Amino acid sequence: MRIAIISVGREILRGRVLDTNSNYLARELTALGHQVVRISQIDDIREEIIWEVKYAASSPVEVIITTGGLGPTSDDITIPSIAAAFDTPCFENKEALKIVEERYRYFYEKGAVESPDLTPERKKMACFPEGAVPLFNNVGAAPGMKWEKNGITIYSLPGVPAEMKYIFENHIKPDLEERNIYRERFVETPCRDESLLEKYISDFKKRNPDIYIKSVPEKFGKEVRIKVVIGMRGDREKIEELLTSLAGEFLKSIREPC
Amino acid sequence: MRIAIISVGREILRGRVLDTNSNYLARELTALGHQVVRISQIDDIREEIIWEVKYAASSPVEVIITTGGLGPTSDDITIPSIAAAFDTPCFENKEALKIVEERYRYFYEKGAVESPDLTPERKKMACFPEGAVPLFNNVGAAPGMKWEKNGITIYSLPGVPAEMKYIFENHIKPDLEERNIYRERFVETPCRDESLLEKYISDFKKRNPDIYIKSVPEKFGKEVRIKVVIGMRGDREKIEELLTSLAGEFLKSIREPC
Repeated sequence: MRIAIISVGREILRGRVLDTNSNYLARELTALGHQVVRISQIDDIREEIIWEVKYAASSPVEVIITTGGLGPTSDDITIPSIAAAFDTPCFENKEALKIVEERYRYFYEKGAVESPDLTPERKKMACFPEGAVPLFNNVGAAPGMKWEKNGITIYSLPGVPAEMKYIFENHIKPDLEERNIYRERFVETPCRDESLLEKYISDFKKRNPDIYIKSVPEKFGKEVRIKVVIGMRGDREKIEELLTSLAGEFLKSIREPC
Repeated sequence: MRIAIISVGREILRGRVLDTNSNYLARELTALGHQVVRISQIDDIREEIIWEVKYAASSPVEVIITTGGLGPTSDDITIPSIAAAFDTPCFENKEALKIVEERYRYFYEKGAVESPDLTPERKKMACFPEGAVPLFNNVGAAPGMKWEKNGITIYSLPGVPAEMKYIFENHIKPDLEERNIYRERFVETPCRDESLLEKYISDFKKRNPDIYIKSVPEKFGKEVRIKVVIGMRGDREKIEELLTSLAGEFLKSIREPC
């Protein structure tokens, strides 16, 4: 499946926060056999989120994953903005409200918050568009969201990495596991110079048009041995064996010095 | 100035590489007083780069910075794709070619490459659109690019972090230094609960409409003291003092428990 990732939060655009969430998701989704086609980091401004979701939804993707902007503060506006991108209002979701209530009660009992009350700021986290399903968050308070809309599955996750990972592992991963997967393998070559290695790469790619192959750029140096990454799609059971054989073939094709 | 950052490279979309370049640039540009409005990570596919550059150029930005895709391999296509986004061909730039030649001679003398010859793969790195200026790269071989086109300044930097930083520090930073700057300050509050802190933040924002203020989300916990970030724009000489006074005022406005 083709997937777009949208990270929402001004802290990323100011360089205060390094967006490790999208890297985690890209790695996990690649390992599951899917293809991340675009990642973007945008401001927590309603119009920016609407525009970005509309753009992603109009491009050929089956899944959109957003991170960030699900919390209780006034700049946490991701879910209502996603709803607005599809001209849909959002309203209090009973199941989501139950999660928020349960989580604040838990934090209250642990002594982490002063009161378990459902204040307007907390209730806001249960505002979902019609048909969206809240995803339980065992780490923080804000539920994630799964929404099937116009043939696209939209997942919204919190921006706090531990919460994002919990919801991904427990709700999204089981949805997206497939038999036919994409895998990559690093191969260390004897070459020090990308520009000389390039012809072996293009020849190999001509003989194996369905694979992905690319050198990994490095600083120049005497001790450098340039790595190449080979990627392909195939059956979960056979893919590692196929990659091993491709890697061997590729190494055999190289003539030194390079 | 409003700035868009575009990171080019499939390795980011596969999760193999964490895009620390855009985080470095966002932090540096924020410190210089500029506003990064959007970051995107896209595939090294010609059409994707063209689309993304066209979109950025049609949005209200003064500067576009790209990273990645300046090297000698066949998937290094950033500069010709940027040129194509403006319906302009690219051709061999003499000054750029001189840089490439000089760098490979240097690496050859250091014993890092087998030959100093200007192969087609190496020559490719000197293909620039008309009017573009090559930026010397003291770390790798590929020159960066500065191109003023249709009222926008486009900078293209290599993806290898050390090369990207060298060109940013030596060519871009001196271009972009300004007197009126934007600065942010972290303030630790006595509060443990974002949803209770929120009302002090919105009240403070109402009294100081020109500032940026936001809590930094955290996991829940007894020992948590939520931080708030306050940002504002002002004269380089006075801004730190103004932020100190704002931070003090904000802390005074908070009533515990929160």
